[in-house]
Amino acid sequence: MQLEAAIKEHIREVPDFPIKGVLFKDISPLFLNPGLINSCTEALTQPWKGIGVNKVIGIDSRGFLLGPQIAAGLDAGFVMIRKKGKLPPQTVSVAYSLEYGEAELESTSASIVPGDKVIVHDDLLATGGTAAAAAELVHKLGGEVVGFSFLIYLDFLGGEAKLHQYSDSLHYLVSYNS
Amino acid sequence: MQLEAAIKEHIREVPDFPIKGVLFKDISPLFLNPGLINSCTEALTQPWKGIGVNKVIGIDSRGFLLGPQIAAGLDAGFVMIRKKGKLPPQTVSVAYSLEYGEAELESTSASIVPGDKVIVHDDLLATGGTAAAAAELVHKLGGEVVGFSFLIYLDFLGGEAKLHQYSDSLHYLVSYNS
Repeated sequence: MQLEAAIKEHIREVPDFPIKGVLFKDISPLFLNPGLINSCTEALTQPWKGIGVNKVIGIDSRGFLLGPQIAAGLDAGFVMIRKKGKLPPQTVSVAYSLEYGEAELESTSASIVPGDKVIVHDDLLATGGTAAAAAELVHKLGGEVVGFSFLIYLDFLGGEAKLHQYSDSLHYLVSYNS
Repeated sequence: MQLEAAIKEHIREVPDFPIKGVLFKDISPLFLNPGLINSCTEALTQPWKGIGVNKVIGIDSRGFLLGPQIAAGLDAGFVMIRKKGKLPPQTVSVAYSLEYGEAELESTSASIVPGDKVIVHDDLLATGGTAAAAAELVHKLGGEVVGFSFLIYLDFLGGEAKLHQYSDSLHYLVSYNS
């Protein structure tokens, strides 16, 4: 609980960004604090120890901030998931719906192999669309999604429900109900 | 030298990506190896110890992969530099020329304050345009660029020369001459 309070003190809420009506959670102040970078990395790693996780996926771009160190702490590999066109061939991709329009996520094909036990990590869980698309990519390559990992969960957007078809294991450090 | 060889073994060269004639350096295999994530983080942190660095800047998005842990290892804050429009207000921005066209980099204004001693980090130094623009942002906010840090330097593109006006201190783990 102490860590949760410290994290929330270092997240700045910005009204009407990126669009009117959205109260954006800005994690910039959190990353200005090296002690919190370490505490968050450790807290995000600990729940997945000893269960055979061998890959951690980070979603471009804020999932890259802690993903590699979470992976290293689990003695697992780190895999980048990016918007279509950013990664060199060979890749696999998955299309998914956003609030406004469509997007496509991509992974290097060789990064996930059948039998991999994978954690999907991002900084924030909102509606769950992006995380579900990442899980879909893992499935496409024959991997198993062991769980989802987030720094922040916006529970009023209900993303948790969308992820249950892939894994019942969801972990986050702080949540907001508005 | 041992680390250098291990890194190069885990960088895949992809011809004609993102455009014809470019031999892309793909760091995906490197990040699949947790031992190398740790060794690279340590090797990128060590040269800056004990000289009062208090901020490490990471350039979106591959500069986010190791930047936060380099910062934490120096007991420094980590600052994201992103393409214009991605960060919430208040921000400062700098326009710079790319090989084809123009781009704008942005930082949260409050992330750098006068007197800060800053390292600019990215995965790769090519022509130096992006790193120079990041250094310009640091200057605009009153910070001092203590040095530049890269995983890879493409020395045939001569980026080093472009950075000398900001700092004579440049560090990278591997270089390529083609």
